[in-house]
Amino acid sequence: MNKTARRIYETIRHDPIVSPHGHCEPSWFADDAAFPDPTTLILTPDHYLFRMLLSQGVSLADIGIGTPPDQRDNRAIWNLFAAHWDRFLGTPSHSWLTYMFRETFGCDLAFGPDTADEIYDHIDAALKTPGFRPRALFRSFNIETLATTDAATDPLVHHQTIRDSGWEGRVIPTFRPDALFDPADARFAPAMAELEKMHDIEGFPGFLDALRQRRAHFKALGATATDHAQEVLRTAWIPERMGDLYAKARKGTCTAEEAADFNAHMLVESARMSCDDGLVMQIHAGSRRNTNAALLRKYGRDMGADIPVATDWVRGLGPLLDQVGHVEGFNMILFTLDESTYSRELAPMAGHWPCLRIGPPWWFHDSARGIARYFDRVVETAGYHNLAGFNDDTRAFCSIPARHDVWRQGVATHLGKQVKRGLFGIDDATRIAGLLSTGLARSAYRLEI
Amino acid sequence: MNKTARRIYETIRHDPIVSPHGHCEPSWFADDAAFPDPTTLILTPDHYLFRMLLSQGVSLADIGIGTPPDQRDNRAIWNLFAAHWDRFLGTPSHSWLTYMFRETFGCDLAFGPDTADEIYDHIDAALKTPGFRPRALFRSFNIETLATTDAATDPLVHHQTIRDSGWEGRVIPTFRPDALFDPADARFAPAMAELEKMHDIEGFPGFLDALRQRRAHFKALGATATDHAQEVLRTAWIPERMGDLYAKARKGTCTAEEAADFNAHMLVESARMSCDDGLVMQIHAGSRRNTNAALLRKYGRDMGADIPVATDWVRGLGPLLDQVGHVEGFNMILFTLDESTYSRELAPMAGHWPCLRIGPPWWFHDSARGIARYFDRVVETAGYHNLAGFNDDTRAFCSIPARHDVWRQGVATHLGKQVKRGLFGIDDATRIAGLLSTGLARSAYRLEI
Amino acid sequence: MNKTARRIYETIRHDPIVSPHGHCEPSWFADDAAFPDPTTLILTPDHYLFRMLLSQGVSLADIGIGTPPDQRDNRAIWNLFAAHWDRFLGTPSHSWLTYMFRETFGCDLAFGPDTADEIYDHIDAALKTPGFRPRALFRSFNIETLATTDAATDPLVHHQTIRDSGWEGRVIPTFRPDALFDPADARFAPAMAELEKMHDIEGFPGFLDALRQRRAHFKALGATATDHAQEVLRTAWIPERMGDLYAKARKGTCTAEEAADFNAHMLVESARMSCDDGLVMQIHAGSRRNTNAALLRKYGRDMGADIPVATDWVRGLGPLLDQVGHVEGFNMILFTLDESTYSRELAPMAGHWPCLRIGPPWWFHDSARGIARYFDRVVETAGYHNLAGFNDDTRAFCSIPARHDVWRQGVATHLGKQVKRGLFGIDDATRIAGLLSTGLARSAYRLEI
Repeated sequence: MNKTARRIYETIRHDPIVSPHGHCEPSWFADDAAFPDPTTLILTPDHYLFRMLLSQGVSLADIGIGTPPDQRDNRAIWNLFAAHWDRFLGTPSHSWLTYMFRETFGCDLAFGPDTADEIYDHIDAALKTPGFRPRALFRSFNIETLATTDAATDPLVHHQTIRDSGWEGRVIPTFRPDALFDPADARFAPAMAELEKMHDIEGFPGFLDALRQRRAHFKALGATATDHAQEVLRTAWIPERMGDLYAKARKGTCTAEEAADFNAHMLVESARMSCDDGLVMQIHAGSRRNTNAALLRKYGRDMGADIPVATDWVRGLGPLLDQVGHVEGFNMILFTLDESTYSRELAPMAGHWPCLRIGPPWWFHDSARGIARYFDRVVETAGYHNLAGFNDDTRAFCSIPARHDVWRQGVATHLGKQVKRGLFGIDDATRIAGLLSTGLARSAYRLEI
Repeated sequence: MNKTARRIYETIRHDPIVSPHGHCEPSWFADDAAFPDPTTLILTPDHYLFRMLLSQGVSLADIGIGTPPDQRDNRAIWNLFAAHWDRFLGTPSHSWLTYMFRETFGCDLAFGPDTADEIYDHIDAALKTPGFRPRALFRSFNIETLATTDAATDPLVHHQTIRDSGWEGRVIPTFRPDALFDPADARFAPAMAELEKMHDIEGFPGFLDALRQRRAHFKALGATATDHAQEVLRTAWIPERMGDLYAKARKGTCTAEEAADFNAHMLVESARMSCDDGLVMQIHAGSRRNTNAALLRKYGRDMGADIPVATDWVRGLGPLLDQVGHVEGFNMILFTLDESTYSRELAPMAGHWPCLRIGPPWWFHDSARGIARYFDRVVETAGYHNLAGFNDDTRAFCSIPARHDVWRQGVATHLGKQVKRGLFGIDDATRIAGLLSTGLARSAYRLEI
Repeated sequence: MNKTARRIYETIRHDPIVSPHGHCEPSWFADDAAFPDPTTLILTPDHYLFRMLLSQGVSLADIGIGTPPDQRDNRAIWNLFAAHWDRFLGTPSHSWLTYMFRETFGCDLAFGPDTADEIYDHIDAALKTPGFRPRALFRSFNIETLATTDAATDPLVHHQTIRDSGWEGRVIPTFRPDALFDPADARFAPAMAELEKMHDIEGFPGFLDALRQRRAHFKALGATATDHAQEVLRTAWIPERMGDLYAKARKGTCTAEEAADFNAHMLVESARMSCDDGLVMQIHAGSRRNTNAALLRKYGRDMGADIPVATDWVRGLGPLLDQVGHVEGFNMILFTLDESTYSRELAPMAGHWPCLRIGPPWWFHDSARGIARYFDRVVETAGYHNLAGFNDDTRAFCSIPARHDVWRQGVATHLGKQVKRGLFGIDDATRIAGLLSTGLARSAYRLEI
């Protein structure tokens, strides 16, 4: 960071945290129970950590995955992790945990095999104090808004509890209907059954109505956005075929092609509903899910085997944009795992369509160098106002301040260079820094307070 | 820019401008009429500007697109633009306009809502003076050669007028037969009708003859190059099918596949004609044109909705290179919007085939960081002598010096780093700087004087 | 290089050379005959050099390709090369040769047309001395291990001779069965005929047995790895079809599709054999071979016309990983020519699968900037321990120290920046430098001594 960058950084460093997309559990804030132990809090939910361990020969069984929580030796798992700590050198996980140990838990020891026990004890003791309960951490992290991600059929009991409790923390749901959109997904039939328990559904129009009602329910509990994960991005507008396809999907008789058509059409339906109810539409595209068949069989989904594939945003999003690209008030945020699309597709698209904003570097690219590449490739074509600020996208609650800090350092580093290049002065840079830190996230997700 | 870079920059900063590819109107130099006003000169023809405005919620109607020129409130449009000037921070447009206001119009005020009127008046007054007529600007910009881009059926009346006028400025046409090559393009039938008015055409051989005659006409007026825009690059050599395909194309009965075959073959025919007449062949590939259907319906083509897509140069160009890749004197310049092809395809290809040169960063990547990425990825494999120097590719006449200046700064920045890395000394760097500034553009386009 | 980088560089600069993948001739070390002359040693085998010359209008005939060695005017070729030396500015070839002239041959003159003769004489004289015989150079280069690449049916006579000679240099073969895997390759039938001369083969099971025996033979002579070059990466597990496909392949009646299926299946068979015999499996994917048809007809394969194409590692490797991805002791090293896959596919995959390591930047990207891009894009997701160190992949024996030096400088430059960014201290950096210089190559290829 050059001197200017440091100066810029200081102006945003302590900004509140706006976290409009992530995977924290709403139950934490509903119950406000103490977190059980360092391993369960920090290690177990973080697939960044266990995927690296796995790649270095540590089996998931070794770190307790597949073992009931109460039968795990959490201290042993913690020590096993510490023994592999050098494997994380150079990764954002290393930065995040270092920050978390020091800033969140006030522990200045360098983590490693020799200090693992001491740090475990330090954190474990902290977690037993009131200041480290979820709501207290939420406050001390200075979180302004935290969005969770919830299945469309989730009754949102915990969100309701949070509301009813009168607590002032703003924790809101996000509507994620993936399981209801893809008849080829094993989760489709159970999700449909759930939905039918909640709503009387008569054919495809009834299905759309049920979705609208679910969205309204989410909105009532504060939701401002939907989210859609897509391996291969494809959209289509084929209303004339949907009665048929819906009937087949319900009977489980869709071909792979028909299932893909159903899903492609539903994305456009979702966009049209957003035009009506104002929920911001997020698309996370290009992650091939659960690529490790053995792991999937043994441990289930989301075990760190999701791998990016190339994405065609231009042709993939075409039919959707044809339908709603010009509707005023429609907002859409795009997340890619294919960095070659930053300058080739996303920046040109966001620099044209009023409805589009580019989401921050996602997942593997949410890192110091990934952030540098992102700014390098999107800003010249899309400017700053077509970006969506930052979101941490994490299920590792305690890493949230660390992740926002890496982003803010990246913002400052980038802007410091821009000033040095003579593109604008420190005043503009500071203003843009504020936008990137919080302002754009608020406006992109309609979270202004 | 480091010290060495600055030293290198000073050696090329005031070089003449060689502009071998762009979209200026030849009528400007034929008529030499004063430009009407700042908005019409600077804003209206620049899709970089109005695409960003559109993305930020300014409709094209708001800036006068679709309104007859004489009914537009140009000052109001200018002020609307100024009100959104901060949206352009970090973009090359911001750099270009800042340079243009200061260097071309001698106006030191920082552009913005508060100064917009004053700057408008300043430029408007300048445009009424003889020194700001097109030919005078051409001279004061120190332009050595300016190539326009012209439909194959363009009668080149303005180019003829320029010639006949005895003016010493070198403005030359470029032969662009896209409309005649793609039977799936709405412009195909009218273009064919034009061509048939100009030449008697008997079947496919007659079509080829007519093309040869058009090329000869362009050449007689100074053309040294052809240009071909392709969304999906595909070439083929299928002479045995062309009689048939031509007949179908004329009747408008080609399938999409047949139209693509026709186009793929015509690219190879064009290359063969280049082998005969020496016109340098340019290919601009990977831009999906007019992706915004509503905009296309309302305002027509070229409204800032052309978006890049991934390009396969190796397989796409294979059949063409098989036919003419070894013909001595055949020159071909490739432009990509897919930066992942710089190091993967273009540099390896240009570092092998004698006929190939890599065009400069194009369109969205014609920017300081885009230029840095370009050098970073092509030089190690292709060297400097397989590049084609710079071209500004603009229809915004007054931005030409600014664009060449950004390139020259980028050249100097790159070479300054190379010297610092110890790859070569300041003498080699200065020589290469001269090549990149003007020499390679002259040799690649056969524009030596 | 910053100060820290220089300090790190000094700790690895003189490390022994571990060269686990390359294309040197084993006969050099078997016979230990003097190299004939500078041109034959340095220029003729280096397609990096003659591809650039070709791109700049020097025909392969001009530099003696296609002329019997004893009829070439090697000094004239050398001078022709020198006359084009400026074309190589900015390329790694320029760095490598500069290093070689100075460090290996102790010649401080700057190469160029004026000094070409003197340098030729200097090197020619050196080559006539015992210190420049292959084995002596091997020692003075401080090579710990050198792997060659050998067809599966190669009898390995020279490797046997090296063994029998009692020489202490470690030169080992690598098993490359490409010709036997792809029925669409012109080399398939002759390779099969070779194999049948060596082994009695009864149907597909017999073919597999013969491969196993060849692998055992390679292993007995020190091989620790196999290598597989694939244009389009595709793997499949279709044992039920292989009897049939094998019969068709032997008769030469496979369709293109069937040939691709055969090849896709054989890659998985090879991986399974690696699970049994411990040979590390290398895949070099995404090079389209011999794209210049005229050159192929005239001079044969490997004439600098291999060009990269986009690669889909995730789907391409899926079926293979499903079969053997979890087998303990299975090691696989992936090489890409598609840099967009570094951060999109290879780093996420290597950061998940225990069997995978990412090979160093390959071919066109084995260069200072290519190395910088590599570290920038892989480390944050894969860390350092999922990399495979360096290999020079060269048939230009005398360039080996130069290539390892460029890598080591790249390692130091990268790590120096990481220290400056505060990611880790100089001690960790120095340790990682040692891994990248030699340690990871040893462990990835099982070459520990």
